[in-house]
Amino acid sequence: MKEISSKDNKLIKYISKLQTSARFRREEKRFVAEGLRVCVEAVLSGADIVSVLVTENALNKHSEALRPLLVACSDVYLTSDKAMSAACDTQTPQGVVCLIKTLDNNIDLDTINNKYILAENVQDPSNLGTILRTADALGLSGVIMTKDCCDIYSPKVCRGAMGALYRVPFMIIDNAPDFIRDFNKTGSSFAAVVRDAQPVTSCSFEGKCLVAVGNEGNGLTDATANACSSRITIPMNSNAESLNAAIAAGILMWEMIK
Amino acid sequence: MKEISSKDNKLIKYISKLQTSARFRREEKRFVAEGLRVCVEAVLSGADIVSVLVTENALNKHSEALRPLLVACSDVYLTSDKAMSAACDTQTPQGVVCLIKTLDNNIDLDTINNKYILAENVQDPSNLGTILRTADALGLSGVIMTKDCCDIYSPKVCRGAMGALYRVPFMIIDNAPDFIRDFNKTGSSFAAVVRDAQPVTSCSFEGKCLVAVGNEGNGLTDATANACSSRITIPMNSNAESLNAAIAAGILMWEMIK
Repeated sequence: MKEISSKDNKLIKYISKLQTSARFRREEKRFVAEGLRVCVEAVLSGADIVSVLVTENALNKHSEALRPLLVACSDVYLTSDKAMSAACDTQTPQGVVCLIKTLDNNIDLDTINNKYILAENVQDPSNLGTILRTADALGLSGVIMTKDCCDIYSPKVCRGAMGALYRVPFMIIDNAPDFIRDFNKTGSSFAAVVRDAQPVTSCSFEGKCLVAVGNEGNGLTDATANACSSRITIPMNSNAESLNAAIAAGILMWEMIK
Repeated sequence: MKEISSKDNKLIKYISKLQTSARFRREEKRFVAEGLRVCVEAVLSGADIVSVLVTENALNKHSEALRPLLVACSDVYLTSDKAMSAACDTQTPQGVVCLIKTLDNNIDLDTINNKYILAENVQDPSNLGTILRTADALGLSGVIMTKDCCDIYSPKVCRGAMGALYRVPFMIIDNAPDFIRDFNKTGSSFAAVVRDAQPVTSCSFEGKCLVAVGNEGNGLTDATANACSSRITIPMNSNAESLNAAIAAGILMWEMIK
């Protein structure tokens, strides 16, 4: 097994830059998964693992759990605690890090009956991660994100999404209104808004359809809401502020697939 | 207006201790709300504000928005930036902090048709905050929490719950199985579990009822699940790991009330 002892090692610096720069992740087509559970989930879900970094401590403590990772990837580095800390986004690294190839968009838009969620300008990585995890658990056909959403490969999204990142088909689009107008030729689209809309309980989600949800503070843009074939809303208590974006998306996905 | 300039001021030290110690919050029956929006939500939702601390910057910038706070509370301190930082849990304080009386349990368990969510040993403050916010938005009758849940008055719960903390009736209980057996005399109780249970889509939530949800990693304890009159589950994709605890609770609350 190769060894890395210095935090100035070239691979450590490369990983550290991938952790902080979305642009660098896009250029290199690589991202980083961190932590025993997240890394093992990645390999079990078919992620393309380029390298594995592991501390001696983690290797001794989790030898059994690490096996699928070490079987799937031969480029493994025994890494000092100091170098591991420099590679990690979390403050208490668990001693396991993977370098992974990013996926291309891998969604199938042509199938009849498919159900999609479209996220426009979702900014909180926990919300985006939770939307991916929920879409996976409920069995949606895919998640469509506008390019102004937070980066799907950011460390926080990876943690929130768990293995869903590698299992749920997804697509990143430039322009939501254009995408929706094209989608409307073969399916129906629903804009999730807070008022002046049909209650979700009286909607039919038969056939191919998508539900569009918007930014945490501002909701959907007018252009995107107007491009959808209908407007829907989750009826709420009048005194309440609003639902969290991930909860609203979760209830809407549930209504689509149940 | 009284002034606080030093971070060693007695009130600053008192607030700082309330921010970090759940035990101290229980002893003093006080907690801290932080940030313009959260503090204003608190006062508009009828919270009992003891003191307000505000920086000169915040006072100049948000004089209009701060008005309800300054009308509701006469114990106001113009606070230096340094002292404000020492009182705050967030790294970039917005310059507004309130000291608030904790609420006693204020739930009404006797009403026919009421719907409750019971959270057992929920550990993540964001999840508990989101459960409160969702219960508020969907109009549940109350949230029941076991005392081993994270503290409802912790800074992170307050931020996640938004104003819901002051609007949703809640109750903290010692023992979930005893509570549920007593509840079963006048209502029905549903344990949310991941397998060997009735799908939530085929349940009737008529009349007075509660749904019990468990800890993020381990779910409900056997004792609590066994005390419930039925077991229910959210049908999931077989490859998926699980739903996030707050999302699962959100979908279950939605099914109860819609």
